[in-house]
Amino acid sequence: MQITLNSPLDMHLHLRDEAMLQIVAPLSAHSFAAAIVMPNLVPPVTSIEAVKAYKERIITAIGEEHFTPLMTLFFQDNYDYDFLKEAKKQITAIKLYPAGITTNSEGGVSGIDSESLKMTLDAMSRLDIPLLIHGESNGFVMDREKEFVPVYEELAQNFPDLTIIMEHITTKASVEALNRHKNLYATITLHHLLITLDDVAGGMLEPHLFCKPIAKRPEDREALLDAALQAHPKVMFGSDSAPHPQHAKESCGCAAGVFTAPIALPVLAELFASHNKLENLQAFVSDNAQKIYNFTPEKKNVVLEDKPSLVPAIYDTVVPMYAGKEIGWSITSVS
Amino acid sequence: MQITLNSPLDMHLHLRDEAMLQIVAPLSAHSFAAAIVMPNLVPPVTSIEAVKAYKERIITAIGEEHFTPLMTLFFQDNYDYDFLKEAKKQITAIKLYPAGITTNSEGGVSGIDSESLKMTLDAMSRLDIPLLIHGESNGFVMDREKEFVPVYEELAQNFPDLTIIMEHITTKASVEALNRHKNLYATITLHHLLITLDDVAGGMLEPHLFCKPIAKRPEDREALLDAALQAHPKVMFGSDSAPHPQHAKESCGCAAGVFTAPIALPVLAELFASHNKLENLQAFVSDNAQKIYNFTPEKKNVVLEDKPSLVPAIYDTVVPMYAGKEIGWSITSVS
Repeated sequence: MQITLNSPLDMHLHLRDEAMLQIVAPLSAHSFAAAIVMPNLVPPVTSIEAVKAYKERIITAIGEEHFTPLMTLFFQDNYDYDFLKEAKKQITAIKLYPAGITTNSEGGVSGIDSESLKMTLDAMSRLDIPLLIHGESNGFVMDREKEFVPVYEELAQNFPDLTIIMEHITTKASVEALNRHKNLYATITLHHLLITLDDVAGGMLEPHLFCKPIAKRPEDREALLDAALQAHPKVMFGSDSAPHPQHAKESCGCAAGVFTAPIALPVLAELFASHNKLENLQAFVSDNAQKIYNFTPEKKNVVLEDKPSLVPAIYDTVVPMYAGKEIGWSITSVS
Repeated sequence: MQITLNSPLDMHLHLRDEAMLQIVAPLSAHSFAAAIVMPNLVPPVTSIEAVKAYKERIITAIGEEHFTPLMTLFFQDNYDYDFLKEAKKQITAIKLYPAGITTNSEGGVSGIDSESLKMTLDAMSRLDIPLLIHGESNGFVMDREKEFVPVYEELAQNFPDLTIIMEHITTKASVEALNRHKNLYATITLHHLLITLDDVAGGMLEPHLFCKPIAKRPEDREALLDAALQAHPKVMFGSDSAPHPQHAKESCGCAAGVFTAPIALPVLAELFASHNKLENLQAFVSDNAQKIYNFTPEKKNVVLEDKPSLVPAIYDTVVPMYAGKEIGWSITSVS
C-alpha cells in the first residue's frame, strides 16, 4: 500500500531554540512542508523583532530542507491594532496560554475573559489573525480541558469573526464544541489519537507519554479518532511534538511533552490505513488546514508505504514516541 | 499538642525480602506494634513453610524492636479446609490478587467468581480467616476499582460469614459499598488521604506518588478522608507502604508504590489534628482493626507531638513520601 501526501502540514509544533532547535528542526523540515511554530521560548516571543530573529534561527537550523516555519506571537493583552498590523507581515497566528498551564507559560494570561482581551481580539478579528489557545483550566487534571470549553464558547460568541483554534484537543467535549460554533476549529495530535491515560499510568508510569493536556479516557480518544479519520473539516493535524532532553523526561518531576515529529506521518498513515480511511489523511494533514488558515503551502510530495521501519531509540538527546520499536509504515521519498 | 497512640497497627504493609527487608522492616517495627505483611514475594508465599521462613527472616531483620509481623498467604483456589486449618496457626489472613494487577501478582487469580473460589472461601469462612483483596478490574485505570465493587459485593453476599477486606480503597464507590454489606471492611492508606491524580500527573510527573490503585479524583479523596477522620468503624489504617529502589522509581517505566511507613504516624497525626479529629486517630490506627480482626496486639505506646521534623531524603536506597521536606509532627517516644 502507498500514499502520496501533498504538502503535509504540522499545525502545532515546538521547535525550541539553541541546541534543541538544531536537533529537531531538520526532522520536521524533512517530512513537512510547513508548520505552525509555537512561541513559548524563554523569554516568550512577544515582539516582531523576536519573531524575525527566531525565524532566522529556524531557517538556519533547517539547512537544505524546503520547509516554511509559520511564526506565532505569544499572546499578550496589550497587543493593539497598529502593532498587529505590522506583526501580521511576520506571523501566521497568535498563541494564548493561560498562565502557568504548561512548559514556559508563566507569562501567559491570568484571567481569560472577553472584556479584558477585547482590544487585542478585536484587532485580531479585523486583521484575520487566528487565535490559538491551549485550553485548560487550573482544575483537576482530568477535567481541565472540559472546564475550559465554556471559555472557548464565550470567546467564539463574543468574537464571531475571530478564527479560534482549540489546540491539541483531548476530549469528546471539545469535539462536540466544534460543532456548536462556526468559528471554532481544532488541532489533534498523533499521540492523543493513540493513547489514553492507561498508556501513561495504567501499567508502569511512562514519562515519554506524559504530556499536557494529559491523555484522557477511552471514549475521549474514540471521539478524537473518529473526527480525524472522518477528516472532520474543522480539525487539522498538529503534532504538539515537544522535545525535552532525555534526562528531563526520565527523572523525578518529568517534563510534559511527547516527541513525535519524525514519526508522525508514517504512524498516521498506518493508523488511517488500519481503519480503511487512508483517503482521508490528505485532508487531515493538509487540506483542512489550508482552508482554515486560508493559505497555500509550498509544494512537497511525501510518499509513504506500508514497509516496516525502525524508530531510532534516540535522536541525539531526545527520545521519540515508539523509541526502538518497529512501525508498519515508512517515508520512502520526499520531493 | 500531643497524642499517645496505643499499639498502632499497619494493616497493609510490604516488607519485601533480602536487602530491602533489612532496610524497611526496622522502620515499620520502630513505630508500629504489628502489621499485616503482604505475601507478594517472588515466588509468592503459598505454603506454610514459606510463611514460617519469611516470618523468621522478618524477625531477624527487626532486631531489637517489639513488633509482630502478622503473616498472610497468597491466595490460591486450591487451598482446602485441612490445609487452611494447619495454616491458621501461622497466618492472620489471606491476600487475593487478580492476576497481573500490581507488583509481583502474576500468579494471582484470573477469574474471580464465587463458584470457582467456593472451596477455599467456604473453608476460610469456617476457620474465620479474613480475605484481603486488591480490588481492581483490568479496565481503564481510573475505573478499575469502581468496576471491581460488584465483585466485592457478590463475594460478600455469597459468603456472608467471610470477613472481606477491601484493601487500600481509593474511591467514593468503595466507601459507599462498605455500608451495604456487614462483612465488608476496608483499609485506607496515608497517601490516598492526601493526594489525587493531580499530585501524580497534574504538574510534573511524580514517580514517587505513583501507586496502584492510582490516586483518584478530589471527591474520592474527600470520601476517604471523611471515613478516616470519623473513624468509620469498618475502616482501618493500612499504609500499603511499598518500597522500591530509587532507580526503579526514577527511571522509564517507574514501578508502582509509595514508601510511607516511617512517616505514616506523624503525618496522620498532623492530618487528624488539622481537622480537629485527633481523638479519632486511635480508632483509625488500631482499635478498629483489633475489633475487625478480633485480636489484641502487644502493648506499645507511641507518643507524637506537633514538633516539626525533617523527612530524610532517602532511607538507604528508598525515597519516602515527603523526602527532604519538613512535616509538622514527630514521634517523640516509643515504649
